[in-house]
Amino acid sequence: MKSDIILLGHGSGGKLSHQLLDEVILPRISGLSQRDQNDAAVLRHGGERLAFTTDSYVVDPIFFPGGNIGDLAINGTVNDLAMSGARPLAISVGLILEEGLPIIDLIKILDSMQHAANIAEVRIVAGDTKVVPRGKADKIFINTSGIGIFDHELEILGSGARVGDKVIINGTIGDHGMAILASREGLDLESDIRSDSAALNGLVETILKTGSEQVHVLRDPTRGGVATTLKEIALQSGVDITLSEEGLPVTPAVGGACAILGLDPLFVANEGKLLAIVGPEKAEAVRTAMRTHPAGRQATIIGEITGESAGKVFMRTAIGGLRAIEMLAGEQLPRIC
Amino acid sequence: MKSDIILLGHGSGGKLSHQLLDEVILPRISGLSQRDQNDAAVLRHGGERLAFTTDSYVVDPIFFPGGNIGDLAINGTVNDLAMSGARPLAISVGLILEEGLPIIDLIKILDSMQHAANIAEVRIVAGDTKVVPRGKADKIFINTSGIGIFDHELEILGSGARVGDKVIINGTIGDHGMAILASREGLDLESDIRSDSAALNGLVETILKTGSEQVHVLRDPTRGGVATTLKEIALQSGVDITLSEEGLPVTPAVGGACAILGLDPLFVANEGKLLAIVGPEKAEAVRTAMRTHPAGRQATIIGEITGESAGKVFMRTAIGGLRAIEMLAGEQLPRIC
Repeated sequence: MKSDIILLGHGSGGKLSHQLLDEVILPRISGLSQRDQNDAAVLRHGGERLAFTTDSYVVDPIFFPGGNIGDLAINGTVNDLAMSGARPLAISVGLILEEGLPIIDLIKILDSMQHAANIAEVRIVAGDTKVVPRGKADKIFINTSGIGIFDHELEILGSGARVGDKVIINGTIGDHGMAILASREGLDLESDIRSDSAALNGLVETILKTGSEQVHVLRDPTRGGVATTLKEIALQSGVDITLSEEGLPVTPAVGGACAILGLDPLFVANEGKLLAIVGPEKAEAVRTAMRTHPAGRQATIIGEITGESAGKVFMRTAIGGLRAIEMLAGEQLPRIC
Repeated sequence: MKSDIILLGHGSGGKLSHQLLDEVILPRISGLSQRDQNDAAVLRHGGERLAFTTDSYVVDPIFFPGGNIGDLAINGTVNDLAMSGARPLAISVGLILEEGLPIIDLIKILDSMQHAANIAEVRIVAGDTKVVPRGKADKIFINTSGIGIFDHELEILGSGARVGDKVIINGTIGDHGMAILASREGLDLESDIRSDSAALNGLVETILKTGSEQVHVLRDPTRGGVATTLKEIALQSGVDITLSEEGLPVTPAVGGACAILGLDPLFVANEGKLLAIVGPEKAEAVRTAMRTHPAGRQATIIGEITGESAGKVFMRTAIGGLRAIEMLAGEQLPRIC
């Protein structure tokens, strides 16, 4: 480790996060180092498979256009389970509250959590509440952990991408990160940019029904954005991925705000998006099926797996050039989720 | 709610915590309100039962005599699973790190977590790391969630206590809370008081093997101490419980420190203790069996279930009087776990 203290960038989801994971955490926690890094762990018990995942949410601000920390936490954990191919079964909620948090804010957040759980058809079954003195936390932090079950035999893993596969995304990129940033900084970005926070388990069901064993990878591009997530998949699968700049769906509002602020939407977090990497025979059918689902209306093929073993991600630019895409390097936007 | 903001006492595990739970959280989260409040939720899937639990740890200081926040978090979640009668299978770890945390401290904590997991024979299978800016958290907070499986058909619930049952504890009370307090305040308490933080799943196995269907309740008296935990059980089971003051095991060091500070060890947190409520035919056998286990060497019968339906807890004092015991009222010791 280059630093002997924790830096904000260690929480970015990008390069520093991976360094902390690879050099400090994985060598010490044997159960984590023994498996590929996927959104959920898959446990085997009595012939059945269970998915298990955890995420803590420290987003700032706790209320933002399109959601709040509560539904974000439910959707995020539902999505991590769904990305492993599992059907979310139960969620736990661990609250860390700062002394002085208005009870009315807590109520709004809890109501959003239950509402999000209803939409995703998952039950919140276990909870815990801790309180810390003023100045020792920031309003509220939420951990959601989840258990999922498998209704099929498919193995959806980050290491599953193969040459020729297509990369499909279910809609526009960068909305969540830019909504948080605009809301935090009080930016007046003219048009409303709203978080895309949403549960994707229904969409995953549709994808698996159509694509079946041709669905090789599912991953939600949260911290670090589409670029970092694709780089992870490229490394895990030992393949190269080439994106087409023209194909990338970005709303004019997000595109404009990113341009003004010097940010690349490819690196901005999403909370209602997934990347599906699907074999060429089924890619078109999967994209078409996705478009029948409310969470997939703008599903688009944005790239493909173009080579083996190098773990590189390229962007074919609008003018025909090819540039290499790396992981997010620093802390583009801390506390995005 | 009497207060419109969160108070430190809402995290005490006592009366205010129950008020927050009953008036704010449970009415809004349907999956929590539908079940008895036990240490772990029990899910049914495909004919099998699964236990699921979550806990966040915000203890201050993060290193203390007898442990640190890392092994505390593993032991606490192992124990919550064990108290439901389940065998711990897998644990997730969610880290919230404050910018500036020395990496060397993180390493010590992670090593302790893996060590505690090894002792408890449980695997850490899923993890997440978030970082918040300096002053927005306090060094490190840890959430551990856990999944357990059942090797038997017994139902161990807080509502299971019956008149005539004996209350057994596996050792001395108040050690964890007093170790934290002494360490936090820099008190020179002459003798070393050490946290009792320990995994109790092995001891629970011994208890269930001997007591079988006579084991009615298992509960670890953490926040709020033995008094609050027994009051919860009395209310859930609709029984009265009478303790014998003379029978309560307290080390001279903890007893002395409590006397100096005006604290009652009955309300002080434990992290390696359990209360077993066992039918009269098997209570002696269970106590004897517990004493063969390293975590139960000082197992003692400290009281019994003396009446139905009132939900009261009494203490028979050394001079023969009877006093009522209530839940912890305020925040005796914030951030004890």
